[in-house]
Amino acid sequence: MSGDACLIFSASSHPISSFAQSEMAKSWNVQLKCYDAWCGVAHGCSRKLGMKICGFLQKNNNLEEKIRSSKDLLDNSDRDSRFRRTETDFSNLFARDLLPAKNGEEPTMQFLLEVVDILTNYVRKTFDRSTKVLDFHHPHQLLEGMEGFNLELSDQPESLEQILVDCRDTLKYGVRTGHPRFFNQLSTGLDIIGLSGEWLTSTANTNMFTYEIAPVFVLMEQLTLKKMREIIGWPDGEGDGIFSPGGAISNMYSVMIARYKFFPEVKTKGMTAAPRLVLFTSEHQNRSPKQNATISIHSNNTRLHIHSHGVCLQGCVPMFVNATAGSTVYGAFDPIHELADICEKYNMWLHVDGAWGGGLLMSRKHRHKLCGVERANSVTWNPHKMMGVPLQCSAILVRERGVLSGCNSMCAGYLFQPDKQYDVSYDTGDKAIQCGRHVDIFKFWLMWKAKGTIGFEQHIDKCLDLSHYLYTKIKGREGYQMVFDGEPQHTNVCFWYLPPGIRDMPDGQEKREKLHKVAPKIKALMMESGTTMVGYQPQGDKVNFFRMVISNPAATRSDIDFLTDEIERLGQDL
Amino acid sequence: MSGDACLIFSASSHPISSFAQSEMAKSWNVQLKCYDAWCGVAHGCSRKLGMKICGFLQKNNNLEEKIRSSKDLLDNSDRDSRFRRTETDFSNLFARDLLPAKNGEEPTMQFLLEVVDILTNYVRKTFDRSTKVLDFHHPHQLLEGMEGFNLELSDQPESLEQILVDCRDTLKYGVRTGHPRFFNQLSTGLDIIGLSGEWLTSTANTNMFTYEIAPVFVLMEQLTLKKMREIIGWPDGEGDGIFSPGGAISNMYSVMIARYKFFPEVKTKGMTAAPRLVLFTSEHQNRSPKQNATISIHSNNTRLHIHSHGVCLQGCVPMFVNATAGSTVYGAFDPIHELADICEKYNMWLHVDGAWGGGLLMSRKHRHKLCGVERANSVTWNPHKMMGVPLQCSAILVRERGVLSGCNSMCAGYLFQPDKQYDVSYDTGDKAIQCGRHVDIFKFWLMWKAKGTIGFEQHIDKCLDLSHYLYTKIKGREGYQMVFDGEPQHTNVCFWYLPPGIRDMPDGQEKREKLHKVAPKIKALMMESGTTMVGYQPQGDKVNFFRMVISNPAATRSDIDFLTDEIERLGQDL
Repeated sequence: MSGDACLIFSASSHPISSFAQSEMAKSWNVQLKCYDAWCGVAHGCSRKLGMKICGFLQKNNNLEEKIRSSKDLLDNSDRDSRFRRTETDFSNLFARDLLPAKNGEEPTMQFLLEVVDILTNYVRKTFDRSTKVLDFHHPHQLLEGMEGFNLELSDQPESLEQILVDCRDTLKYGVRTGHPRFFNQLSTGLDIIGLSGEWLTSTANTNMFTYEIAPVFVLMEQLTLKKMREIIGWPDGEGDGIFSPGGAISNMYSVMIARYKFFPEVKTKGMTAAPRLVLFTSEHQNRSPKQNATISIHSNNTRLHIHSHGVCLQGCVPMFVNATAGSTVYGAFDPIHELADICEKYNMWLHVDGAWGGGLLMSRKHRHKLCGVERANSVTWNPHKMMGVPLQCSAILVRERGVLSGCNSMCAGYLFQPDKQYDVSYDTGDKAIQCGRHVDIFKFWLMWKAKGTIGFEQHIDKCLDLSHYLYTKIKGREGYQMVFDGEPQHTNVCFWYLPPGIRDMPDGQEKREKLHKVAPKIKALMMESGTTMVGYQPQGDKVNFFRMVISNPAATRSDIDFLTDEIERLGQDL
Repeated sequence: MSGDACLIFSASSHPISSFAQSEMAKSWNVQLKCYDAWCGVAHGCSRKLGMKICGFLQKNNNLEEKIRSSKDLLDNSDRDSRFRRTETDFSNLFARDLLPAKNGEEPTMQFLLEVVDILTNYVRKTFDRSTKVLDFHHPHQLLEGMEGFNLELSDQPESLEQILVDCRDTLKYGVRTGHPRFFNQLSTGLDIIGLSGEWLTSTANTNMFTYEIAPVFVLMEQLTLKKMREIIGWPDGEGDGIFSPGGAISNMYSVMIARYKFFPEVKTKGMTAAPRLVLFTSEHQNRSPKQNATISIHSNNTRLHIHSHGVCLQGCVPMFVNATAGSTVYGAFDPIHELADICEKYNMWLHVDGAWGGGLLMSRKHRHKLCGVERANSVTWNPHKMMGVPLQCSAILVRERGVLSGCNSMCAGYLFQPDKQYDVSYDTGDKAIQCGRHVDIFKFWLMWKAKGTIGFEQHIDKCLDLSHYLYTKIKGREGYQMVFDGEPQHTNVCFWYLPPGIRDMPDGQEKREKLHKVAPKIKALMMESGTTMVGYQPQGDKVNFFRMVISNPAATRSDIDFLTDEIERLGQDL
């Protein structure tokens, strides 16, 4: 550390530069020189030179002498060049000059700090409502190459200067998912603690495989999963679980575990060891349970409309019921107690897909929507959705201990050695279908530490309050029509906006066809103007409608107002 | 930006502090005050105050007056407190004070920079051989709580000061997987460009779902996959592919695609639409093809020893051959051409699992080990293994266009709207089994830009040179015995170390039992001393042996020498 005690740099792009170029600076020579000396260190002058200046600063009492001397030290380099970090410092540097290269420490630090400068500026702008959500370009435009931004890969290396330009451009042409007016997905927002957690996770760059290589993360995962099981309501938080790369894979785990539980021979003998199995899920499910039926069983066996069809036993064995807790489009919650009764009666596995709605368990006000979740055999819960944790962070939680590893263990000697010196029951690899497993826990654990359970509760309550505000605002308002009756259960508010030109048309095919085109058109205009983003889709026999979802902690009532104003402005003349 | 033009801060912990406390500083009041004013902005004084100072600095020409005024402005705050950032600035700050909170920008920037300070120090130490690879503690020790480090989560938030301590401690008790002497896993190393890429990816925090929300990343993925297919040798790089959360899931894709290709009705009618299917894989496979047989088909149907058993047709349909290109323990490559001939003859899908060995395709010297890979129907290739890309980064590449989305598309209207304003053929979601998909491409793309193809080639060649050095060094050396005959094909060097006490024992059960305990014991001592890490395992009838793998770009011959010295030192008296 001591050697770096002189390292000072600028967080914004060229503050010193603009300062130096000001008229005032010219007449303020003494002060400017002094900054020069310090900035020289930060702006890529050699580490050795920086040290010399610092040492000098610390040894000399005379201000004038100090300034003259640092001026002398720096005279050989061009002054302007010292101010344009990227252009002068990185144009002759390459990846091969960074650590572990000899003398790579200084360029490495400079490069990382330059990247951080780009990122912190991006973070700042993300929360600034005067910044656009996106700067839209068509695929062919980006593929043809924007000025200085070429996506093609080549045999020869690019300079670090170009790499920094690429970083800036990548962000410039991307979408600010943390912007207060980004409502397009279930996962929105940019949580600063979560972000810090991800930065640390990348720096640690390890694997959740074994305690041996991820001791702290493995324990954090264990404790956090236990806490989640307590919140679900399983006695003493008993059970098992694991973080997986997303809700679809968590749901896949649930199907595999259920199949193993009822027909353990499937593990060794395959599907011939089981009869034809039936899975039930809601018509308004997320696509993943259906997809998992394709992977593990098959999709015709996923019976839709469980309530209207009842339990069907035509030569098949009903095995699994998926209760959706927060459907993707409507945010609807299946009645878990009723499904649990059916599962008990017919000895079926009850899975609760709370990928989207699981977060509501953190709120004393809203958790009743998952009433009965404690009766589930397994639960999918994605903190990366409603809880604002950076993607990816999804948990599969299992009530019964042992079935998760029973189902997935392959006892590969090269992965898990029982003769290690520590308690190998902490190794997680035999529970996972993955060998390499990304550390998804740390950002979540850190956010929980930093916010406390009450912080998550406040976030959930605030988002649901906002959606209530939107619902109340547009319900009955001229030009709006709600897609489903009644108050939304989650933050999903689904509505049609009818431009003045079609409001008074008689109901019928023509009106439907016109209305079907409204949301795509408004969305396209929104994206071109870059002001906000919200999703739309058709559903069943319903033509395209907007689905507003609020999980973004940066959103306020003014942003909701902005969205409706924008829809009305852009849709006015359609 | 303009409002931030004054932001200057220190990258290391307390440079200004130590400077201020020096004797010299006392007599150098003018200069010090000036820094104070600037640092006040950075060290957590309110943004408003910072702006005032800056505005003032920019308007006044008179140095003395400027300094007096900024002194006045700052006089109300305690001077020392401004210098001890962590202790004074963050102890009363909480996550709720960060963006999007009102006035949250300044604490957010300070907090992120403090985190970066922790991370850059970690990076620096990772490459420093005088730093230990790990500071080992048993699970119960970490669970009981180390001094100031408590893993438990609570209802109430912790201060940001505590969060920073937690970040430091998390790294302190972890394992430095980028350390030049970390050889424990297939994924090692800490690539600075890759790390920067991950930091940016986390900051962008989006989803690979659609072009709409990840325009740049989606195109980068497309171009990079094409480049990889060109390197495999498929004409014009045609085909398809996707990045998945790891090799096991990439291999799962291959099984699903093959099944869909031969029996497309499986997608809708399930496994009853297919006969009993057989998969073939090498005895020395990674566990994942076997595991995928459990998920998708079943593991008894995974025939081992394809060469000795030949193609078996006992009432089953042989469908899929997995050619391992770089086995996990031995680093062995299956003869792809021979397997391709068999696959052509019997109309089977040929998959090459190059999770570990795929990287060798980048080397003109070593790519012959995958000769015939261009005949495969699909290839798994994990840049997060041999190519040093941070975990997770795994690609599944498919020769035939259309089968990937044919197999996985669910045409969920809420995910993909064909009436969008851009060319929706760039949306990737219908190819993936995931809904939320982490951006794994950017770090890899950025590394490729920064190193060029030749940079990856140099890395591969260097690692294989190092393993050759190790092999040559210990082959025939007293106390060492190689596990398999001949030169390793990959960087895997498998060997027993025989302590002097058992070298002269007659072969037999007693010697085997003793030898079986040697590697675990040496490994335990290694971890306790924290000096280096290397894996061991038994395999078949072979007792525990060391498996050295080299993928770490920081490793040199001296580190290889260090490893063998350490094994000999620790194993001397066993």
